[in-house]
Amino acid sequence: MPSPRRWWVELESKLNGGIMVIQATVEKFLDELASGHPTPGGGSAAAIMGAMGAALVSMVCNVTIGKKGYEAVEGEMRAVLEESEKVRRRLSAMVAEDIAAFDSILAAYKLPKATDDDKSRRAEAIQAGLRRATETPLDCARVCAEVIALSRRASEHGYLNVISDGGVGVLAGFTGLRSAALNVYINAPALKDRAFAERAAAEVGKLVAYGAAESEAVYKIVRDKLG
Amino acid sequence: MPSPRRWWVELESKLNGGIMVIQATVEKFLDELASGHPTPGGGSAAAIMGAMGAALVSMVCNVTIGKKGYEAVEGEMRAVLEESEKVRRRLSAMVAEDIAAFDSILAAYKLPKATDDDKSRRAEAIQAGLRRATETPLDCARVCAEVIALSRRASEHGYLNVISDGGVGVLAGFTGLRSAALNVYINAPALKDRAFAERAAAEVGKLVAYGAAESEAVYKIVRDKLG
Repeated sequence: MPSPRRWWVELESKLNGGIMVIQATVEKFLDELASGHPTPGGGSAAAIMGAMGAALVSMVCNVTIGKKGYEAVEGEMRAVLEESEKVRRRLSAMVAEDIAAFDSILAAYKLPKATDDDKSRRAEAIQAGLRRATETPLDCARVCAEVIALSRRASEHGYLNVISDGGVGVLAGFTGLRSAALNVYINAPALKDRAFAERAAAEVGKLVAYGAAESEAVYKIVRDKLG
Repeated sequence: MPSPRRWWVELESKLNGGIMVIQATVEKFLDELASGHPTPGGGSAAAIMGAMGAALVSMVCNVTIGKKGYEAVEGEMRAVLEESEKVRRRLSAMVAEDIAAFDSILAAYKLPKATDDDKSRRAEAIQAGLRRATETPLDCARVCAEVIALSRRASEHGYLNVISDGGVGVLAGFTGLRSAALNVYINAPALKDRAFAERAAAEVGKLVAYGAAESEAVYKIVRDKLG
């Protein structure tokens, strides 16, 4: 088992908060992701993939609303759109949360460790940071599960000619979920609060199992409609 | 089987070429993805997910290069990095290609259809556009398969504490591949050149099968290292 990203302390955090990430260009975001700097990393990528999934669900709804022949599902599409846009905003905000969680561990490792009191305060701060770096991807996984559920409604009722976009949406949502789960798995083992760590790992395991089954079912709906 | 995105003609293309997309902010890209406009759509999302996968492979390499205890794999990490950065640039460029392919069909549908000659020229232009809109995601799928192959090398040899980022990389690469495949499946059926359409569908089917098996194998390597 690797130590909880202790390499963070070897590196300077280059970004001043994750809000900058979604306000950077896509090109710049990819450059930052590729760099040897700790953030943005897989956690930010997970949240953005989830947000892309939510955005594609919204696209299917937006195209379907007002389309001739789809009057009967317009109410449902409006309801899905309201949810998918809410979920998209939450996932976009999670990029910043992911980076803030990383930064809090980074800051904790930099605390003084001269006295026993120092050491104990530092250890507590590290644990608090790790807890945050476990809760954030767990929350990301929960919201990605909502993307998958919404993608079923969009793919079942949405305009046929954008159905492949609904299919990409469910795949992106599930990959966001699974990627967030990896971030729970890497951080949870170092948590001293074993009860919390095990609850988190168990919950994310259930979310992954739900996501795997449900995303394949939605993918099948889409694939069958493509003929 | 849905008609080949005939709804394009109902909408005005809002973006002047896909290069703008990767130079837009992540936030703006997500807004455009969510909108009822045809581009960017699932094809652009596929290319960007593939590029995120390549970027995360690069991150693993960049962090590993120069790390104490990893001297023996430094040459391999440099070789993987050179490839993953090449692949990332190709996938970033594919966002523009995807949008250009869409636009060429859009333009074809707007051609005059008063005379028989007009009609035949228009039909040819539509077929040329459809071919392009099949070749572009097929090429995207091929390059995403390279991301998966590179992610194995990064995950086998990369620094242990960034291994979850390698795991997110392989998931993103495979989702890019599968998403690109959906774009082949939606466009290929309307192609009059059946031999080409069937070759494209068969090749993308093989790429999906390879990607499914290989990405699960790499995911397992990562998961086992996380303990």
